Amino acid sequence: MARIRTVGLVVKRDRPRAMRLARRVVAWLGRRRIRVLADVETGLPGVSSLPKDQLVRRVDLLVVLGGDGTLLSIARRTDGRVPILGVNMGELGFLTAVTEREAMPALASVLAGKYTTDRRMTLAATLSRRGRAVRSLSAVNDVVITNGALARIVEFEVSVDDMPLTTYRADGMIVATPTGSTAYSLSAGGPIVEPSVRVIVLSPISPHTLSNRPVVVRPNAVVRIAIAKREQDALLTIDGQEGMPLQGGDVVEVREGRFPVSLIHTPNRTYFDVLRSKLGWGR
Amino acid sequence: MARIRTVGLVVKRDRPRAMRLARRVVAWLGRRRIRVLADVETGLPGVSSLPKDQLVRRVDLLVVLGGDGTLLSIARRTDGRVPILGVNMGELGFLTAVTEREAMPALASVLAGKYTTDRRMTLAATLSRRGRAVRSLSAVNDVVITNGALARIVEFEVSVDDMPLTTYRADGMIVATPTGSTAYSLSAGGPIVEPSVRVIVLSPISPHTLSNRPVVVRPNAVVRIAIAKREQDALLTIDGQEGMPLQGGDVVEVREGRFPVSLIHTPNRTYFDVLRSKLGWGR
Amino acid sequence: MARIRTVGLVVKRDRPRAMRLARRVVAWLGRRRIRVLADVETGLPGVSSLPKDQLVRRVDLLVVLGGDGTLLSIARRTDGRVPILGVNMGELGFLTAVTEREAMPALASVLAGKYTTDRRMTLAATLSRRGRAVRSLSAVNDVVITNGALARIVEFEVSVDDMPLTTYRADGMIVATPTGSTAYSLSAGGPIVEPSVRVIVLSPISPHTLSNRPVVVRPNAVVRIAIAKREQDALLTIDGQEGMPLQGGDVVEVREGRFPVSLIHTPNRTYFDVLRSKLGWGR
Amino acid sequence: MARIRTVGLVVKRDRPRAMRLARRVVAWLGRRRIRVLADVETGLPGVSSLPKDQLVRRVDLLVVLGGDGTLLSIARRTDGRVPILGVNMGELGFLTAVTEREAMPALASVLAGKYTTDRRMTLAATLSRRGRAVRSLSAVNDVVITNGALARIVEFEVSVDDMPLTTYRADGMIVATPTGSTAYSLSAGGPIVEPSVRVIVLSPISPHTLSNRPVVVRPNAVVRIAIAKREQDALLTIDGQEGMPLQGGDVVEVREGRFPVSLIHTPNRTYFDVLRSKLGWGR
Repeated sequence: MARIRTVGLVVKRDRPRAMRLARRVVAWLGRRRIRVLADVETGLPGVSSLPKDQLVRRVDLLVVLGGDGTLLSIARRTDGRVPILGVNMGELGFLTAVTEREAMPALASVLAGKYTTDRRMTLAATLSRRGRAVRSLSAVNDVVITNGALARIVEFEVSVDDMPLTTYRADGMIVATPTGSTAYSLSAGGPIVEPSVRVIVLSPISPHTLSNRPVVVRPNAVVRIAIAKREQDALLTIDGQEGMPLQGGDVVEVREGRFPVSLIHTPNRTYFDVLRSKLGWGR
Repeated sequence: MARIRTVGLVVKRDRPRAMRLARRVVAWLGRRRIRVLADVETGLPGVSSLPKDQLVRRVDLLVVLGGDGTLLSIARRTDGRVPILGVNMGELGFLTAVTEREAMPALASVLAGKYTTDRRMTLAATLSRRGRAVRSLSAVNDVVITNGALARIVEFEVSVDDMPLTTYRADGMIVATPTGSTAYSLSAGGPIVEPSVRVIVLSPISPHTLSNRPVVVRPNAVVRIAIAKREQDALLTIDGQEGMPLQGGDVVEVREGRFPVSLIHTPNRTYFDVLRSKLGWGR
Repeated sequence: MARIRTVGLVVKRDRPRAMRLARRVVAWLGRRRIRVLADVETGLPGVSSLPKDQLVRRVDLLVVLGGDGTLLSIARRTDGRVPILGVNMGELGFLTAVTEREAMPALASVLAGKYTTDRRMTLAATLSRRGRAVRSLSAVNDVVITNGALARIVEFEVSVDDMPLTTYRADGMIVATPTGSTAYSLSAGGPIVEPSVRVIVLSPISPHTLSNRPVVVRPNAVVRIAIAKREQDALLTIDGQEGMPLQGGDVVEVREGRFPVSLIHTPNRTYFDVLRSKLGWGR
Repeated sequence: MARIRTVGLVVKRDRPRAMRLARRVVAWLGRRRIRVLADVETGLPGVSSLPKDQLVRRVDLLVVLGGDGTLLSIARRTDGRVPILGVNMGELGFLTAVTEREAMPALASVLAGKYTTDRRMTLAATLSRRGRAVRSLSAVNDVVITNGALARIVEFEVSVDDMPLTTYRADGMIVATPTGSTAYSLSAGGPIVEPSVRVIVLSPISPHTLSNRPVVVRPNAVVRIAIAKREQDALLTIDGQEGMPLQGGDVVEVREGRFPVSLIHTPNRTYFDVLRSKLGWGR
């Protein structure tokens, strides 16, 4: 772990407490002569800001103050090199397991090189239209295909490594990483997958055929989803944040991403501790 | 049961076999001097046609040749007076349990007055905006609230007879009749409800809170769904066929419809026979 | 509501707080010259005790201090005439929605005739062996058929009003009242049914066929469960409390019980309030 | 792959067609001077027989004629060295994907060395009582802990690599391999896991806490299940076939087995082909 000279800050701007903590972080880093950059949406006074795609290439550490959504918005742009410290601003998150109270000590430990990271598998999706790749995307949680506004059901064929799985008629399909298994996939009936496992989870959303249960495939599989020709109104969404319209006949190929995401691990709680808390187990 | 003088025909137009059977039905009724009207979308040559809303008021019997969708499109416009004979054109339907082969004998029985009907409960939905009722709708299967294209999650509060149930964050909510319990509601995890039961089924779609399981309430309940103020992109859908956009703050009230739908019962198979066949039980 | 002269007490004996409250209740009723009887398992010093089956016939009111299990143990023995006041001793119950703190005021209201009751539907089960009825049972929550210790799967045929539903291969079958819908049936995937609804819920337990989803039938249905001839090791359980072994070829018939259970309603919380609390909704 | 000199036959004895095929196999192998041994339960006339545990050490190939259950009964006794050819006798199996018709050609290919094997992960379970390991077991599908006959619910604590997961109150817990994911685990709500994936699936059976969803953990995890001290009536079952009673305080540790099972792959159908057929997808 190289010395940390520049820190990137990404803050859930509409949370006053997050902005307050951000100012403390900026001052604290300033006293240690560590440079701070922020993303343009954060917009911290007195701090240079950059678009997220540029920010990730200029910093040695990312500090996220907000929820899992805020962290996802920057994480899928990293290339696995920059570690991310996620601090939740109230509600414990799966990706932001450090509390506000633990934030400054955690930051101090990280700067002292005393930290470990969880390397989380990502997904790479390619959208092909009429046989030509038109878009490539990275996801930390999930690549989701859904019906658009008008139609409820979308029809699509799924194959894994060119072996046909089946044709689905459903509200959609979630292709999730283990990290994403506790997000949308869980609501759709998918299993919880410990994030150190390397697999791809396929969770159909409200499938017409009741036995169309979630399928877990190996990480080096190529999952190919071909939208039925007659579909006119489908949607591809990345991490629940970026969307683009799909056309009938479009093909989305999903495989493991080249770069994992590097999350700084909090020693204060295990993955299962967070799980119990988030899902209300053992109340 | 009054004598049948006029029959309304609603046909799944893009199915050649349905159109062929329609012509046989027209000829057969003509020979018996029974008048035939068709809906404008069916468009049978030599048969007067009317919009669906007018058709239902001018006929003594409706004959539907198509699938459950075709039957739904006319059924929710009836007022319980006109019996409906549903003939499926290939795949057995929950509402169209008469096969192509059984169609002519069934029609003969109906004209001879030898038939029984299942009276199926319906739903009446009222959409209120800024405190004013702006739209009233009838449903045979379900009244569905979903997110629109952009957002995955829609937030809404549900109360039953003014008693708060809970606030949902979900892909949506299905308010289903027993008839609709085997349609979208089943895909979303709802129970199968025998159609003679009179209840309202509330099935949340992929709810964020995993314990938000389907709730069955009494038929005379008023189910009130209030869309969260900040929502910008939600949708109300009736029987999967008619949709309209919702705004933040909109309120949808659902209660039992004034009129049931009157389905002509086929003596050849019970509801459970159809259920087993449709769901692949006992293969 | 006739004047209350004798009160029956059923107490969860191994809970010291319940026994303490019981003594307060005894003293309080004594001062009002109301006779108190207890069930033999409660065993309150200075209070005459009777077996549960006799107790229910000798009292004008039952006061239960304990959990839902304690209340169930006496409720299924009543004939709908005696109202039951259920006080939970710590954890809120679906049937014991009165808290310890509310107990004495609630009792005072009941004695003053100021109370309403919820009449909860029950189930009557008859076990037939080689064509002869050998046992009749009442249930407030559920009649459950499961595999015994050795075999996982039990095979049985279910019919409703002599119409075959299907043959199940499963861990078992739960036939539940609306009251029982939030007990075992819910864990097995059944819907939540508002207790004022009158229906019978059939929830198969871990069925082999994935589309064998819960079925809700009308209250006047006769549900007939015929254990496959070759089964050697099955079990019938009532309200999770009374069990008896079943043999291959045994038939269990379940229908609505003749008498409802009469639960005293607490004005302090609705059914939905209890539901939200028990299921952790809206944390 | 060494030359095959001795073949072990395991046959579902009560299926006449299986016994007929077995005699054909014996004759065919006899003509090729390949020795045949059978397990004692098969009991083929003119064929030496051995108990299953000895059989697996004396043969170069196992041929199973029967269903998945028959194959499981021998597979968990192998040490990964002996390949297994599974022939189903009617109903396609997940482990017996070769049809009766394909059996002789498949056998000829295997003897000619023309075959590939799927190496399936197994589980090793250790039962400890009062701190002492009292029993070690191998499973191909699953290690299952359930309530015994009397009690419905069993309470147990689960930890993964000494990190507490949670305390369950449930009908039981299924610890499954990917191979076992389509057996009992699927009925209990677990995901389908492609058998080439290496993970351990934890599927609670009808858990009291509704959010206790299946958890997928890494293959090198040690899953520790500690039965609550007060439990008196629980059961440990291996592959649904071998059972033994558990006592309160017992601890079951499950980890990946040392030896995989080596299944001969049929080139005629993929895993997904079998899946679609078994689950009725795409009817």
